[in-house]
Amino acid sequence: MPDTLSEQALQLHKENKGKIHIELNTPLETKDDLSLVYTPGVADVSRHLSKHPEETNDYTWRGRCVAVISDGSAVLGLGNIGPEGAYPVMEGKCALFKRFAGLDAVPILLSTQDPDEIIDTVIRIAPSFGAINLEDISAPRCFYIEEQLKKKLNIPVIHDDQWGTAVVVYSGLLNACKVTSRSFKKSKIVVNGVGAAGTAIIKILHHNKVKNIIACDSNGIIYSNREGNSDHKSYIASITNPNIVKGNLEVAAQNADIIIGVSKADLFTDTIIRSMNKESIVFALANPNPEIMPEAAKSAGVAVIATGRSDFPNQVNNALGFPGIFKGLFDAHVTEVTLEMLTNAAVSLSAVIENPDTDHIIPSVFDPEVVPSISKNIVKS
Amino acid sequence: MPDTLSEQALQLHKENKGKIHIELNTPLETKDDLSLVYTPGVADVSRHLSKHPEETNDYTWRGRCVAVISDGSAVLGLGNIGPEGAYPVMEGKCALFKRFAGLDAVPILLSTQDPDEIIDTVIRIAPSFGAINLEDISAPRCFYIEEQLKKKLNIPVIHDDQWGTAVVVYSGLLNACKVTSRSFKKSKIVVNGVGAAGTAIIKILHHNKVKNIIACDSNGIIYSNREGNSDHKSYIASITNPNIVKGNLEVAAQNADIIIGVSKADLFTDTIIRSMNKESIVFALANPNPEIMPEAAKSAGVAVIATGRSDFPNQVNNALGFPGIFKGLFDAHVTEVTLEMLTNAAVSLSAVIENPDTDHIIPSVFDPEVVPSISKNIVKS
Repeated sequence: MPDTLSEQALQLHKENKGKIHIELNTPLETKDDLSLVYTPGVADVSRHLSKHPEETNDYTWRGRCVAVISDGSAVLGLGNIGPEGAYPVMEGKCALFKRFAGLDAVPILLSTQDPDEIIDTVIRIAPSFGAINLEDISAPRCFYIEEQLKKKLNIPVIHDDQWGTAVVVYSGLLNACKVTSRSFKKSKIVVNGVGAAGTAIIKILHHNKVKNIIACDSNGIIYSNREGNSDHKSYIASITNPNIVKGNLEVAAQNADIIIGVSKADLFTDTIIRSMNKESIVFALANPNPEIMPEAAKSAGVAVIATGRSDFPNQVNNALGFPGIFKGLFDAHVTEVTLEMLTNAAVSLSAVIENPDTDHIIPSVFDPEVVPSISKNIVKS
Repeated sequence: MPDTLSEQALQLHKENKGKIHIELNTPLETKDDLSLVYTPGVADVSRHLSKHPEETNDYTWRGRCVAVISDGSAVLGLGNIGPEGAYPVMEGKCALFKRFAGLDAVPILLSTQDPDEIIDTVIRIAPSFGAINLEDISAPRCFYIEEQLKKKLNIPVIHDDQWGTAVVVYSGLLNACKVTSRSFKKSKIVVNGVGAAGTAIIKILHHNKVKNIIACDSNGIIYSNREGNSDHKSYIASITNPNIVKGNLEVAAQNADIIIGVSKADLFTDTIIRSMNKESIVFALANPNPEIMPEAAKSAGVAVIATGRSDFPNQVNNALGFPGIFKGLFDAHVTEVTLEMLTNAAVSLSAVIENPDTDHIIPSVFDPEVVPSISKNIVKS
């Protein structure tokens, strides 16, 4: 067995030639089997579905089949590495869909990075799938692509870098507030970074009536009519920073209850953290190196710290979200996912932990309650 | 169990919710498994493939993954029934790819029937697949789509309604000539119908130096400069009918050795068949009702008759071709399939039957020699 994780990962991928494969649902050993699965019997199923296309999910794998679609423009921490570089990540995600939710998912890697071409392409292959998981598409392109696809398709479309992360973060925050006995809605929450994840986190907080959100980018606090605001930044300003606070991240952090980093390593200095309210909550989600290391955060007075890493407690891991979310959408025959459904998903994920404590606000991905809790509650009946 | 084949097929599809599903290649039960299959380990595989994209087939399922792509415009005998109607046929084909060749295949159904949009879409999703199987796309659109995709992609592209059929027909003809002791190349061969299958059959015959081919369409014999010839018909005329014979199918059939129907039920009358040379060979491939029934053909003096049906001997079944063809192309790392390779496939398929006789010119799809014989010989080393 090779020494390093890197060598082990390369070997495992090469020996297994990837991570997923197709299997049959039914034996195909006789002429009779063949005449049911393929011609001539299949013609009757085709005739039926051409008359009742709305039943296609009942007669084919489409009823549980997700497309995991990427243009390779923003892959993990690796940046724009193209479709081949992105391939093992998308295939890995398909493996997780199967393992955790029993769903069938297919990696779709694109040879274009043009937003309108991506939209057209996804629309044209959409009859193949029951749901669309967009993945590792760079911001701000991802917002336009997701928005257009949601409008134009009548199956669920989720950009997981946005919503998977937002659901798990929101769920973790709910438990962190419980642990620190604070009112979630009255908290001052700073979000540093307004890419895919930061934007979706802000949207889900705003949807859930958190009033005092301050968003920062590399130019500091975002506010209405800030010089040079793009449409995206103007939109962020419109749902945050009601008192039009101006300044840098240090200003934003003063008396904050919660600070969420989806940005870069080491940005959360000791000064910044110490200026927060007591019993503060820090989500330092930059990968692989967080905005502040857990030990440093704790010694600066932080009560609860979460990171994206599996070697520390409280890992914010998208794999906690997307399997249950998509399973729930399939089970409830949802055609469009809403912020309310994603909120339900987060609340039910947080409820998996009955008694949260500082090092236990987020469950393990291997906790068997995670997926059923989300999938049963994402759509309220 | 329901009574009719139709009811049984509908029940099987509904109970199993389709015919294929995804499985994992490797267990995903621990944090360590997860860190190899997904983050952080997968990042090293991604980094590697972004530098060496040509190795993607070795590290992902792409090295054995076929897209089975259709716009639903010409499905079985059912016509233009759209993507939902076509879905069970494409999924069935994916099941056959797995069962007979161990390949992973994914049904891709399109929401467009515009040839250029289909081409663009396939190019944009092509990084996801190791090979493209076009299926049930109507003629003459299918010729342009396949030709453009072959030009623009560096993975094998095969429209199976053309080449799968052509390979199995050509293979059957080789054995039928053996049975009737005739020279293949010197035979007069009539092909009635110049859609997808008929055109590809003519191309493979022409490639293999058969000189005396007469092609017919619903207006009779095709010849150069016939009034109203489309580009496609002009092309057909350029590689057939060297003596510029004119007239209807009855004229064409006179003294023919072989007649191949890829057209409509009952077209091959007793008169037509009796005007052929002695010990004639008839492939009556219209589905579900052939151009002539085997019994009628035999009593009119035909030595060997093949049909598309499983309830008669000598079934021309595409499932004999595509699994071995694609497996062979993957095994030999072929980037473009040629007529020579398809000829090799046909010759090796015919060789599966050591001693052909009138009712045994084509092997069973369940003959375990079929796929290895084709896949090992399609590319001559």
